[in-house]
Amino acid sequence: MDITSILQNLKDGRISVEEASGQIRYMPFEDLKYAMIDYNRELRVGCPEVIYGEGKTLEQIKGIVANMAKNKAENILVTRTTKEAYAIVKEIYPNAKYYPVCRIVTVEENPFPKNKGLITVFSAGTVDMPVCEEAVVTAEFLGNNVERVYDVGVAGLHRLLSRLDKVKESNVLIVVAGMEGALASVVGGLTDKPVIAVPTSMGYGANLGGMSALLSMLNSCASGVGVVNIDNGFGAGYLANNINKLSGKL
Amino acid sequence: MDITSILQNLKDGRISVEEASGQIRYMPFEDLKYAMIDYNRELRVGCPEVIYGEGKTLEQIKGIVANMAKNKAENILVTRTTKEAYAIVKEIYPNAKYYPVCRIVTVEENPFPKNKGLITVFSAGTVDMPVCEEAVVTAEFLGNNVERVYDVGVAGLHRLLSRLDKVKESNVLIVVAGMEGALASVVGGLTDKPVIAVPTSMGYGANLGGMSALLSMLNSCASGVGVVNIDNGFGAGYLANNINKLSGKL
Amino acid sequence: MDITSILQNLKDGRISVEEASGQIRYMPFEDLKYAMIDYNRELRVGCPEVIYGEGKTLEQIKGIVANMAKNKAENILVTRTTKEAYAIVKEIYPNAKYYPVCRIVTVEENPFPKNKGLITVFSAGTVDMPVCEEAVVTAEFLGNNVERVYDVGVAGLHRLLSRLDKVKESNVLIVVAGMEGALASVVGGLTDKPVIAVPTSMGYGANLGGMSALLSMLNSCASGVGVVNIDNGFGAGYLANNINKLSGKL
Amino acid sequence: MDITSILQNLKDGRISVEEASGQIRYMPFEDLKYAMIDYNRELRVGCPEVIYGEGKTLEQIKGIVANMAKNKAENILVTRTTKEAYAIVKEIYPNAKYYPVCRIVTVEENPFPKNKGLITVFSAGTVDMPVCEEAVVTAEFLGNNVERVYDVGVAGLHRLLSRLDKVKESNVLIVVAGMEGALASVVGGLTDKPVIAVPTSMGYGANLGGMSALLSMLNSCASGVGVVNIDNGFGAGYLANNINKLSGKL
Amino acid sequence: MDITSILQNLKDGRISVEEASGQIRYMPFEDLKYAMIDYNRELRVGCPEVIYGEGKTLEQIKGIVANMAKNKAENILVTRTTKEAYAIVKEIYPNAKYYPVCRIVTVEENPFPKNKGLITVFSAGTVDMPVCEEAVVTAEFLGNNVERVYDVGVAGLHRLLSRLDKVKESNVLIVVAGMEGALASVVGGLTDKPVIAVPTSMGYGANLGGMSALLSMLNSCASGVGVVNIDNGFGAGYLANNINKLSGKL
Amino acid sequence: MDITSILQNLKDGRISVEEASGQIRYMPFEDLKYAMIDYNRELRVGCPEVIYGEGKTLEQIKGIVANMAKNKAENILVTRTTKEAYAIVKEIYPNAKYYPVCRIVTVEENPFPKNKGLITVFSAGTVDMPVCEEAVVTAEFLGNNVERVYDVGVAGLHRLLSRLDKVKESNVLIVVAGMEGALASVVGGLTDKPVIAVPTSMGYGANLGGMSALLSMLNSCASGVGVVNIDNGFGAGYLANNINKLSGKL
Amino acid sequence: MDITSILQNLKDGRISVEEASGQIRYMPFEDLKYAMIDYNRELRVGCPEVIYGEGKTLEQIKGIVANMAKNKAENILVTRTTKEAYAIVKEIYPNAKYYPVCRIVTVEENPFPKNKGLITVFSAGTVDMPVCEEAVVTAEFLGNNVERVYDVGVAGLHRLLSRLDKVKESNVLIVVAGMEGALASVVGGLTDKPVIAVPTSMGYGANLGGMSALLSMLNSCASGVGVVNIDNGFGAGYLANNINKLSGKL
Amino acid sequence: MDITSILQNLKDGRISVEEASGQIRYMPFEDLKYAMIDYNRELRVGCPEVIYGEGKTLEQIKGIVANMAKNKAENILVTRTTKEAYAIVKEIYPNAKYYPVCRIVTVEENPFPKNKGLITVFSAGTVDMPVCEEAVVTAEFLGNNVERVYDVGVAGLHRLLSRLDKVKESNVLIVVAGMEGALASVVGGLTDKPVIAVPTSMGYGANLGGMSALLSMLNSCASGVGVVNIDNGFGAGYLANNINKLSGKL
Repeated sequence: MDITSILQNLKDGRISVEEASGQIRYMPFEDLKYAMIDYNRELRVGCPEVIYGEGKTLEQIKGIVANMAKNKAENILVTRTTKEAYAIVKEIYPNAKYYPVCRIVTVEENPFPKNKGLITVFSAGTVDMPVCEEAVVTAEFLGNNVERVYDVGVAGLHRLLSRLDKVKESNVLIVVAGMEGALASVVGGLTDKPVIAVPTSMGYGANLGGMSALLSMLNSCASGVGVVNIDNGFGAGYLANNINKLSGKL
Repeated sequence: MDITSILQNLKDGRISVEEASGQIRYMPFEDLKYAMIDYNRELRVGCPEVIYGEGKTLEQIKGIVANMAKNKAENILVTRTTKEAYAIVKEIYPNAKYYPVCRIVTVEENPFPKNKGLITVFSAGTVDMPVCEEAVVTAEFLGNNVERVYDVGVAGLHRLLSRLDKVKESNVLIVVAGMEGALASVVGGLTDKPVIAVPTSMGYGANLGGMSALLSMLNSCASGVGVVNIDNGFGAGYLANNINKLSGKL
Repeated sequence: MDITSILQNLKDGRISVEEASGQIRYMPFEDLKYAMIDYNRELRVGCPEVIYGEGKTLEQIKGIVANMAKNKAENILVTRTTKEAYAIVKEIYPNAKYYPVCRIVTVEENPFPKNKGLITVFSAGTVDMPVCEEAVVTAEFLGNNVERVYDVGVAGLHRLLSRLDKVKESNVLIVVAGMEGALASVVGGLTDKPVIAVPTSMGYGANLGGMSALLSMLNSCASGVGVVNIDNGFGAGYLANNINKLSGKL
Repeated sequence: MDITSILQNLKDGRISVEEASGQIRYMPFEDLKYAMIDYNRELRVGCPEVIYGEGKTLEQIKGIVANMAKNKAENILVTRTTKEAYAIVKEIYPNAKYYPVCRIVTVEENPFPKNKGLITVFSAGTVDMPVCEEAVVTAEFLGNNVERVYDVGVAGLHRLLSRLDKVKESNVLIVVAGMEGALASVVGGLTDKPVIAVPTSMGYGANLGGMSALLSMLNSCASGVGVVNIDNGFGAGYLANNINKLSGKL
Repeated sequence: MDITSILQNLKDGRISVEEASGQIRYMPFEDLKYAMIDYNRELRVGCPEVIYGEGKTLEQIKGIVANMAKNKAENILVTRTTKEAYAIVKEIYPNAKYYPVCRIVTVEENPFPKNKGLITVFSAGTVDMPVCEEAVVTAEFLGNNVERVYDVGVAGLHRLLSRLDKVKESNVLIVVAGMEGALASVVGGLTDKPVIAVPTSMGYGANLGGMSALLSMLNSCASGVGVVNIDNGFGAGYLANNINKLSGKL
Repeated sequence: MDITSILQNLKDGRISVEEASGQIRYMPFEDLKYAMIDYNRELRVGCPEVIYGEGKTLEQIKGIVANMAKNKAENILVTRTTKEAYAIVKEIYPNAKYYPVCRIVTVEENPFPKNKGLITVFSAGTVDMPVCEEAVVTAEFLGNNVERVYDVGVAGLHRLLSRLDKVKESNVLIVVAGMEGALASVVGGLTDKPVIAVPTSMGYGANLGGMSALLSMLNSCASGVGVVNIDNGFGAGYLANNINKLSGKL
Repeated sequence: MDITSILQNLKDGRISVEEASGQIRYMPFEDLKYAMIDYNRELRVGCPEVIYGEGKTLEQIKGIVANMAKNKAENILVTRTTKEAYAIVKEIYPNAKYYPVCRIVTVEENPFPKNKGLITVFSAGTVDMPVCEEAVVTAEFLGNNVERVYDVGVAGLHRLLSRLDKVKESNVLIVVAGMEGALASVVGGLTDKPVIAVPTSMGYGANLGGMSALLSMLNSCASGVGVVNIDNGFGAGYLANNINKLSGKL
Repeated sequence: MDITSILQNLKDGRISVEEASGQIRYMPFEDLKYAMIDYNRELRVGCPEVIYGEGKTLEQIKGIVANMAKNKAENILVTRTTKEAYAIVKEIYPNAKYYPVCRIVTVEENPFPKNKGLITVFSAGTVDMPVCEEAVVTAEFLGNNVERVYDVGVAGLHRLLSRLDKVKESNVLIVVAGMEGALASVVGGLTDKPVIAVPTSMGYGANLGGMSALLSMLNSCASGVGVVNIDNGFGAGYLANNINKLSGKL
């Protein structure tokens, strides 16, 4: 129920001013006291409610998922969560899946159709895999075809150059790198596709927990690069989907 | 001339190994000693060579533009430059234009057709205008229709809410904000379109030259937001174009 | 015109859905393209529109003030501005005043009555005066009685202790200090009145442009201290007024 | 016994110079060697001694509380403490209570009357709850009525807008948010009530342990916002009480 | 007049409670509104009032010095000031002197006797001279014998080793260094005399305006080193005097 | 054996050039491969070798202490160490003592005479005790009389003012404080004795692991304050001893 | 197989364009999905593939080493790894060795000849040993003679001066230091040999996890110093080898 | 005259102990009070005294150069200096040269022979030229052959790949880059020659005055890279010479 319909109903005398006011207030979210679940979100921003698992107790996750089930949610993504949380979700949604590398739980009762162009995730090193996989699983969950090109950091440029085909075939490129994060600039210089750069906290010392890679990517001498938070594979997959939806290309 | 053609010519005996090697080396860029102009770039990354004016001497700008003219460049963008540089460009390209608010010079002998969907640039405050206009002029130069919605910072939320139509009509949203940069999160929460956030250095004290807005945007609680460098209106316009090209929608 | 009235009018058939929608959109602010003036603000947040002068051109300030005059604004505050801007405002509002120490222009055609309790501004040093005066002028403009107790930094504790009467007489205390900002903690420990701490950029070296004083104030071992941005005298005066309005005490 | 009385006694010959000097020195606090308990504090700053539990050994907490009991303290607040400390306090004050979410122990033998206006605590996300509850429990302990509006972050603006009633009904607003902390600016833009912003350390990567939210709140484009330290729910509740005491409104 | 005398007078009936209270309040400082001059300071902390010139207007300096003259001040130090301020002081105190390298004005109508042991100021480089001289002039003004050993940075260790005699002859060592500030550690390792380290802002890039030297000195592997603020030659000279006063050695 | 004696011996023909060269090289330290013990240190800098325990293995500590015993060391200080290390030292020196609060082991076979003036250690809070005690034990070990005045933070100024006698009686003041570190400025403003400020890492959030207190102390508006590293109680005690040695006052 | 040979083969008709293209793509590295092993690296950059162990699972290390064994790798270095990983490597290469202090595993089936000049590793303190040994083991593995001069920090300058012979005998000097990192400047000032400075994270408080030593070394007043990342002993040994290879001196 | 000769003379009775002691003290440097010129330096570290011009007055530069002339210095390098300083040097050394791009003055009365291998300086962009030229002029002055490969940033990788011949022909590679500094990693991955990375302050916003490029280079995923201070072209040229001297290859 959107605001225009509410206004139309009011105009047509089907609802009172108080009712209209109430409907606007009680548009579809539910207040569990510790969480306000926004069922309006899927319509509004084109994505089912995502549960950011970090810092939520098992009880809170259970309460949220149970409420979603009550509201007939079909597709749910829980990020940064644990096996214990997975067990809880599985009781409610028996077909739920757990991805241990990136610590995601998915429920896909009615999966999004994979009718969009290709997203490729490039990584600089093996240690970046948890972040990469968070991007991959998120983008696949949202209905995208995703390819992985891992461990192609610029210290061995030939490894990247051997996979330039993926640069050309993709609609959107996600580049995941820690340390100095140079891979984003190099990939950005090779393409006119949108590049989403994900700095990772991998490295030590002067990497400052990923700030060095982050700053590096923001200063990329190649234009056309948008950056998300350190280790934010989910955000990269989500933004890539938003871009890919526009293109409509398979 | 791309690498595949060079290899084919070699295979067919039309050129020697030495020639092939030489052609790869001398693929279309020209070395002015202080600058290597990459005429291959337009093909490779879909954008004409852009001259980043900051820190270049007038002599260097003149040399680069003159070389471009010799190579029959039709469309040129010089960013962060001065009236003096404009005068120099104008001698070579009499139809060059200068945009004083964002300090850009454009040459558009053969303008890109504006056959793509809408990009809207939102700003939090009046003082962000130079950055906004850098984004607008860049995106228009690259063949996009661009609208401006300025001074709609979150301290007066009604101003933004009154222009939600623009959120819906656009393919890509650019959000420019200094101070705490909250506008990016708020816009990001209202849409499933890709949002490009541009922190600005506007503000004082704890704004740390724009780092506060930058950090804020990277930590956006709304997903789907990609961030570029502080004050990087050009980069935002460029990335928006790369996204918009994919969509093909008018 | 607030949203409830608009809904009531719609309900009563006095306006159409389209009109209601339009009215919500065109609630009282005016779009000058570079600035959206929010005439709704005074009702909504209890303060006339304030013009933050920094970074605005003289043309923009003129346009905004002229529009305000057209809308019959009676009380205007322009902060961080110049004598040149003052001259422009004075042409429109001949009774405008300029405060050179804190660089504020005020228009008070219909001054707020000074019917609230006392606000006292304490400063650690003489050099903090521009920030102090920004707080004083703002709070007086908004209808408060304000006293000044300047140069009572903790290096000479007797200076502060000699003015404890002002701590007791006031409703709200504003403490302005640069360097190590210790004055906020010391004042905070002496009272149960709300303390607003304003770090200043005064000092050098390890003061990091005011960040040291800011961090110091945030870590205050005395509770009951709220902190605003470095050099933000305006914000302190504004917040002090919001608190003082609640108290209603003279 | 305040300093004026001591002077009067001296003047009247009831005490000697040495006694006066001694009384000033031995005004009501007690030196346990590791802690100096300030029984003068309640009179001076209107709040019973609060024990900041972090970093104190169980022996120290026991010693302090026992001394307080000996001095007939009726209301005690121990923050950032443990179940073990609670057990110790409970032996001395059998009616002590423990709040596990915010790790506070309270003793309320003679509770403060709840005769003041409303304070509302808004939070951006579920994970901010420990900080929110620290503010709530502190403010309630000090005699305030407190309401909770949790999980209304700006990514889903409708959630906040649906609870604007609480903005209007409250004397003081506490806004708790991690990540980019935008909620403080948005709430600040909707009201003329004093807003106390509490950044939290929730988030990851570029949140820099809460510094990003802190900087964001300090740069708030909405005026009228005072900021306390990261995760300092206690400080927010304490300052809110100091403001609320002024207003006297129920 | 100290507090004990005031109390004794009260006890003896020579003054009333009100008078005692007033005397405590009006102990010797004078409130010029923009500055509170603390004539009690010389007794209390053993140093004449020092005027920190940075950020004070010429009018303010004039007012302060004139008031001091009225109060018969004999010895005055104005730091970080200008020739213009010097001219003003000279009108009031014709024998005032100006030290252009460190921008200090001194008035020495009744110079402190130089009856204390030696202070030596070591510097790493020529560029540190303004800071060194601020320390030298301050310490000499306060009655110390001071020697200079300049440009003995650790890149040429022999230069320092050739002047070890000065390390042995001095009571207190001041070490002034920019860049990496290693001189403090090296000198600290060669002596059991107190070492006061003064980082300077000299250098560029990763010197971070002197923060690198500051951090270096704080992390000195040689113990016995106390650090003052970046470029704070005055503070070093002042602290050296406080130490030297204790020793009483010539 | 110092360098002058070596030269004299050479001159007198008692040793050859090679021997002189060798003696300079083999001046009294011993190379354990992982540690070079500097027995020359006591003569040179007036302090027995101190073992910084952090990061040393038990084997290394054992080896160093055993070598010292072999060289007849009488007084040894091991800082930041463990009960396990203590057990090892005790096997070699049965009279060794362990101070668990500050984690120091001392060996005092021939204690330094306590023939110097008073050093007083002030702390802002109970939680600063480990750092305070490190300073106390170090200074006592080096032959100083030390008093403790703990938990006198500026939030309750009366606590500090009640102990001003200790400020007057001492030769050197050590001020230990975390959070905003304001105690150093307040004490510094009350005395002309040298003040050594020790920031601690106590606090949370914007305390930045003690950097806020450190910066605060460096920016102290009171002059005469020298700062040591965060939590460096040992360094403060050591520097206080170096100053106190100069004074010779009991 | 290098690119010139591929082109020659193509020219000579021995391979087709497609084959050439394929060969360039499939130059010698192998894609294990999580890792791309670059067998081309030894030829290209003169070093066998090194496995950075941090963050790799045991399964990944096993997979990489097994693939290397299949490809007949003779010399392998695994850094920052564990005993568990060592056990795995040992199953494949029974002669593998583990260095517990620096956590390195080496395989040296066909050791590099030690036919190059001397590299000496200097350290400031005992606690720097893990980093030093990482440099030593790396450089020895790559065929260098390496000497250790440990615990010669500048607080006891004589310790360093006694080992100046090693400065003169070496081709390359590696200086490892935490805290203030001054040793790099002092060594740099004593020689014209290349100095590689390695900051360590040793220290506490204002050492900022090694950033202070790092900044110090970058600001070295002695020229001729190149710096690597904090704790990067491997990088120092590797760069020292690259320099030493050039010299060819034994 | 080195220390061994002094000792031999003493032994042989040619000088007294006092004379020896004096000679050690007065080894060849000269104390101009503001500068100690170290004529021993050329012998000791293989480089003539270099004058760092920044922050030196014209008088100081004149004094230093005049003293050098008196001491028959033949080769002098003055960095970061001005045309005015050049005029002064030219009066003393009429053949002095000025390099305006990098602001260096050289005196080469007896130039170093260019008998060493090649050093190549790569730069990412045109704006890095002042830093590059500082490296080039320094290295040439010290007797090296130097080539320039400018404006080959990674955004256009083909530009760099076209000049790989220079990577192979050189003994030492200097890589100069601002923004994200990725060029150092890419070059480092292509060679086993020592790479000296020079971050520049070029860029804006999140480049943090060059800190981003610096951090990037320190985190280089390619090993074999040593980093110097931001904009430190001189240091890079100097270190490159120290390395190149070892190799002896032409």
